[in-house]
Amino acid sequence: MSRCLISQMEVQGFIERCMKAVGTQPHHARSLAEVLVEGDHRGHYSHGLNRMDMYVKDIQSGICAKDGEPVVMKESAATALVDGKNLLGPVVGNFCMNLAIQKAKEVGIGWVVAHGSNHYGIAGHYAMLALKENMIGMSFTNTSPLVVPTRGKECTLGTNPLSVAAPAAGGDSFVLDMATSAVALGKIELHDRREDPIPQGWGCDPQGKLTTDPKKVLRGGGLVPIGGNEDTGGYKGYGLGMMVEVFCGILAGAQYSKHVRTWKVTDRVANLGQCFVAINPENFAPGFCDRMSDLLSIQRNMDPADPNFPVLAAGDPERMNMKKCEDLGGIPYHINVVNYMNDCAKKVGVSQLLPCDRLISN
Amino acid sequence: MSRCLISQMEVQGFIERCMKAVGTQPHHARSLAEVLVEGDHRGHYSHGLNRMDMYVKDIQSGICAKDGEPVVMKESAATALVDGKNLLGPVVGNFCMNLAIQKAKEVGIGWVVAHGSNHYGIAGHYAMLALKENMIGMSFTNTSPLVVPTRGKECTLGTNPLSVAAPAAGGDSFVLDMATSAVALGKIELHDRREDPIPQGWGCDPQGKLTTDPKKVLRGGGLVPIGGNEDTGGYKGYGLGMMVEVFCGILAGAQYSKHVRTWKVTDRVANLGQCFVAINPENFAPGFCDRMSDLLSIQRNMDPADPNFPVLAAGDPERMNMKKCEDLGGIPYHINVVNYMNDCAKKVGVSQLLPCDRLISN
Repeated sequence: MSRCLISQMEVQGFIERCMKAVGTQPHHARSLAEVLVEGDHRGHYSHGLNRMDMYVKDIQSGICAKDGEPVVMKESAATALVDGKNLLGPVVGNFCMNLAIQKAKEVGIGWVVAHGSNHYGIAGHYAMLALKENMIGMSFTNTSPLVVPTRGKECTLGTNPLSVAAPAAGGDSFVLDMATSAVALGKIELHDRREDPIPQGWGCDPQGKLTTDPKKVLRGGGLVPIGGNEDTGGYKGYGLGMMVEVFCGILAGAQYSKHVRTWKVTDRVANLGQCFVAINPENFAPGFCDRMSDLLSIQRNMDPADPNFPVLAAGDPERMNMKKCEDLGGIPYHINVVNYMNDCAKKVGVSQLLPCDRLISN
Repeated sequence: MSRCLISQMEVQGFIERCMKAVGTQPHHARSLAEVLVEGDHRGHYSHGLNRMDMYVKDIQSGICAKDGEPVVMKESAATALVDGKNLLGPVVGNFCMNLAIQKAKEVGIGWVVAHGSNHYGIAGHYAMLALKENMIGMSFTNTSPLVVPTRGKECTLGTNPLSVAAPAAGGDSFVLDMATSAVALGKIELHDRREDPIPQGWGCDPQGKLTTDPKKVLRGGGLVPIGGNEDTGGYKGYGLGMMVEVFCGILAGAQYSKHVRTWKVTDRVANLGQCFVAINPENFAPGFCDRMSDLLSIQRNMDPADPNFPVLAAGDPERMNMKKCEDLGGIPYHINVVNYMNDCAKKVGVSQLLPCDRLISN
């Protein structure tokens, strides 16, 4: 399989061109492009360029707003409720996270929730904005229902991701960015396409029973929460998915649970709920970053069970992927993705991703 | 197996008697007793009367402080850093949670962390204090290292529990109270005593490999994070355990990770780190409790996979256990636990648990 190397800057410009061509405000297009490029750069291809066409369609169809800015509806020194005005998720997310950081500078913490938002790309992007200020950042979003609660057989929760980023010394950090389902839908789809079975504990069939057949998960079944079955702790993952929903749809007064529109069906506005938190370690015990570094070292320097697979900390796989991109001199994309996106560009009348001739095999 | 029914009030008084006999301040003894009784009442026997002797010994040996009150070291409108002064965990926990609630009344959120704390019983107790004020509550604590990170073979994290409580309409609530390990150590010990194998995904052997033999877990192995192996999402549970450590030991400047003293070895003060959060829904979108009720109903009223096992929400199993206690007219204790505790009472010179003749079989 060959992959096509494209520079980060080119992908950034490309997404901006496509989004602006359908009427997106330039600074909104820039925000979206940054989050998607970051997704790819960190190796989360399911939340990168690959999804650009969805955002293009959302703007084209008018289901997502082109104009305006998010509005603060209610505010205290430490909290805010924001109306995202149905703008692109990254526009809402950046606005809220920056507000949370501002509050954390003043009173040590900012807890900001938004309704009227849309898909915002990788949750980690917003949490990591806090790292630049030497703060802890968190971000949560609800999503379309894809997850079946423990003992159930209906999808009533989204993959409801959460992200927590914490700075360590010397620019190092802990970045947890995870769905509260055992795996993302994309992983099931990949196994289905390859006709491979999935491991026990990823998804269930339409009767709510764990299955290793990806087709059953995709046709009437669903993802299961982290932990899998009830006896292996799946009810904990289910509880965490609910927690994210409490912070997002419930606290913000957005859509929630099975009321969120079906995945990929854009018959009505998404009205997602999202939550953004910044915590200033300066308000707590001195020496935070040094302790973080020690905590990370303890894990990373542990003797691994298999010498070929060192113990990592959250954020390390992404760091390795970014390093790989630097070494290669670009982000490697599957040629099909590049071709598909170039077709999109053609349709909206902008120039294609260039150059497309730097191929690597992997 | 027969169980002995004891009224909540008697267990409360008994624990207070025992603790006061070794020199605990009366109001500290009351706080501890409340948390332990609540643990049993909610069905978390591993965090109730069963552990009283540990607290008695901690006070007797002087490894835990008898006198004093927690002290606020640093404070803003929304945050506080507290020195627990090595007092009993529930004394520190109640102090911090009440402070967090006070701040949430003022600015919508209170985020309070403590160092110098000790075991505080069930995490849910503190989170639930917020429910009385119609607020969301959260509580986190680090614990002695018992969990092996994904790919590792050494215990460098505690079971690091987290609790999130959110009020719904009419006194209903969501109460998530969970360790970030797949299961508690007690469950492994129980299987070991019965010579039953454990399910795949609960623990690993000293080489870091998942095992179904509880003896291997207990002798040099360890618990594994929620999600089990790496391919079923164990790295997410590992990340969540780290997140709890960031909020507790790292943010508070307490002991953390493998620096926390070994479980049940009280050679030095615990200096645990804990985190307490209150969030006031009034600062966000109106109608929080009604949306919570709908969210809970969606899950509970779902058609279950097996008609004999209805879909529950976090907190429902505990609610069922409390109902059982009301119906029985007391908390059922294993007779061995009652006898053991009565021996403790004898040693410290106070009267025993009474009456011990209300037996039920189960």
